[in-house]
Amino acid sequence: MTKRVLITGAAGRIGSHLASALKDRYSIRVHYHNTVPEIPPVDDVHIADVADYDAIAPALVGMDAVVHMAADPSTRATWETVRDKNIIGAYNVLEAARVAGCQKVIFASTNHVMGMYDRDRQWPIYANQPPRPDSLYGVSKAFGETLGRFYHDQHGMSVICLRIGWFLTEPKDEIGLWMWLSPRDCAQVVWRAIESPIGYGVYYAISRNSRRHWDITETIERLGYKPEDDAEQYAAAILGHG
Amino acid sequence: MTKRVLITGAAGRIGSHLASALKDRYSIRVHYHNTVPEIPPVDDVHIADVADYDAIAPALVGMDAVVHMAADPSTRATWETVRDKNIIGAYNVLEAARVAGCQKVIFASTNHVMGMYDRDRQWPIYANQPPRPDSLYGVSKAFGETLGRFYHDQHGMSVICLRIGWFLTEPKDEIGLWMWLSPRDCAQVVWRAIESPIGYGVYYAISRNSRRHWDITETIERLGYKPEDDAEQYAAAILGHG
Repeated sequence: MTKRVLITGAAGRIGSHLASALKDRYSIRVHYHNTVPEIPPVDDVHIADVADYDAIAPALVGMDAVVHMAADPSTRATWETVRDKNIIGAYNVLEAARVAGCQKVIFASTNHVMGMYDRDRQWPIYANQPPRPDSLYGVSKAFGETLGRFYHDQHGMSVICLRIGWFLTEPKDEIGLWMWLSPRDCAQVVWRAIESPIGYGVYYAISRNSRRHWDITETIERLGYKPEDDAEQYAAAILGHG
Repeated sequence: MTKRVLITGAAGRIGSHLASALKDRYSIRVHYHNTVPEIPPVDDVHIADVADYDAIAPALVGMDAVVHMAADPSTRATWETVRDKNIIGAYNVLEAARVAGCQKVIFASTNHVMGMYDRDRQWPIYANQPPRPDSLYGVSKAFGETLGRFYHDQHGMSVICLRIGWFLTEPKDEIGLWMWLSPRDCAQVVWRAIESPIGYGVYYAISRNSRRHWDITETIERLGYKPEDDAEQYAAAILGHG
């Protein structure tokens, strides 16, 4: 039977791509906050502030899985924003999923949970190292990962945290050469996570970039991810030929 | 020169002990919320809700260090309580310390950050394993540890997180035999942390109990902690002789 999947934050760059890319595979419900597209990719639309439990909770009812993208993704976001949208928002979505019997949560995390290792060039980075966020945004996503661990351990839900790299149509600069996540690889890693029997895990989600500094061995071996793209095909154009 | 040290949550069992035990070593300011003792252990008293930034921030002014004990320590605390007292409270104290130029933060963390390993008898537990909290309380303390890491990395503050075991005058049961932290060992580990030049660390804080399951090697070797008590002296009385 077709799974029913809620995508929160579906107005975002990644959320809107996922809604379109996964709508043939799943029965999708999209969540928006303030920005609602004129023609949504699917008919099932829920509008709410994730920071408001009573507003967001009904969105989880009847869902088999939720892909929780809604958040302020800026490394310059203030504490107040991060607290409401990311920390309280993550709690509300996990708790509402539990109450609704939605047993699968894909939590959009980020490389910024570990950004200080990158700043110090302490490579490679493995997903299970102690967190070293580079921003309050990164701190908020580390919180969500740990909260997800608790919901798995305590309530038996499957929570898969994806540390999403740089989602772009194509990489544009040298940093993109190592942290790129292509649109089709993004869609794949999310559906692999939805289909995975794993109870809890944290995985880097980037394309199979030759210049990557983050370990995707577990993403490949445990989630079954088979990345198709490598940013290296853009290297000559980005770096020049001399 | 005598260091000026703020103890938040000084009405609590541990906070009140620390205020008395450390007042000859440091110039202590105590913070209370609703409960204020008739005769405080020191004259310098600040009353505020840690969830209210403007109320707590002045307490940090002029301090060399803060021992942040204020929190709801119940593993049954609700999300609303944990969010306000523990998560927002931790942010407020770290941020107010940064603004006030208070460069040293001792963050009262807890074994409950790792409580699911204990529940599964996955021993020994090392402080740097990925967190597996057993409660929203444990999640909130994991958050504080990660936020402290960020304040160290980003702002150069020294943040020492102590995963405090079971603070009691003496252990009362079998669990106490392995997780006990005696009053004098508690006072010692806190002043060792205050005096330590380490920029960031997470350490288990228990007495040198023969039956311990949590690693205190780093607490001893890096913080210089020299625990004096071992719960084993109470074992015969607790377990009986037959």
